[in-house]
Amino acid sequence: MESINKVNLQEKESLIQEHWKPGIVAALNGQHVKLAKLKGEFVWHQHDQEDEMFLIIKGSLDIEFRDKTLHLEEGELVVVPRGVQHRPVAKEEVTVLLFEPESTINTGDEKTELTREKIEWL
Amino acid sequence: MESINKVNLQEKESLIQEHWKPGIVAALNGQHVKLAKLKGEFVWHQHDQEDEMFLIIKGSLDIEFRDKTLHLEEGELVVVPRGVQHRPVAKEEVTVLLFEPESTINTGDEKTELTREKIEWL
Repeated sequence: MESINKVNLQEKESLIQEHWKPGIVAALNGQHVKLAKLKGEFVWHQHDQEDEMFLIIKGSLDIEFRDKTLHLEEGELVVVPRGVQHRPVAKEEVTVLLFEPESTINTGDEKTELTREKIEWL
Repeated sequence: MESINKVNLQEKESLIQEHWKPGIVAALNGQHVKLAKLKGEFVWHQHDQEDEMFLIIKGSLDIEFRDKTLHLEEGELVVVPRGVQHRPVAKEEVTVLLFEPESTINTGDEKTELTREKIEWL
């Protein structure tokens, strides 16, 4: 059996070198838990098949929807349901934990230079 | 479309009255995100079909396995794979975030007075 180990989010966070490049920290039940540092404006996109959760670990994040903007602080989370267009915007650097199916592509239906086809483990 | 709202974990935590009684704070992709306060020793159990993730929000938690014990502090997580016997033990009250399939029963294969057949939303 594979060894069961704990994951320290602060340690993993210190390994992240690049904004908008999530890294996997845990896998379970076909889902990935990813850690990412975000800064600036992402692209508008949607995930056709996947709901996506953002949990703020450090900093704050705006998630823009077509009809409103949610402002998330540390210790707050939101689930963006599949099919809903959204755009994360971070005025300052923010660290987020993402819960989503293994199949999820970060930019969803939009292929841009920010798209990460292969997500690696941190 | 259902309205998209954020969830504040501290607010939700303040609603928890009872130890070992998880409450749902988010649902996505057939999974539940639950918040629970734990104190004392739980029962040895395993989940035959579900991997289970514990993320420590406040306090610290021991997770005992048959061959070792992991000590988790705030900001640390562990995935307990399906089929692996484990027992959470909290010397002091701890708040944890759980990520697991909607089908998960808290005591797994062990039915005891701690078993919560129906988990409610916080």
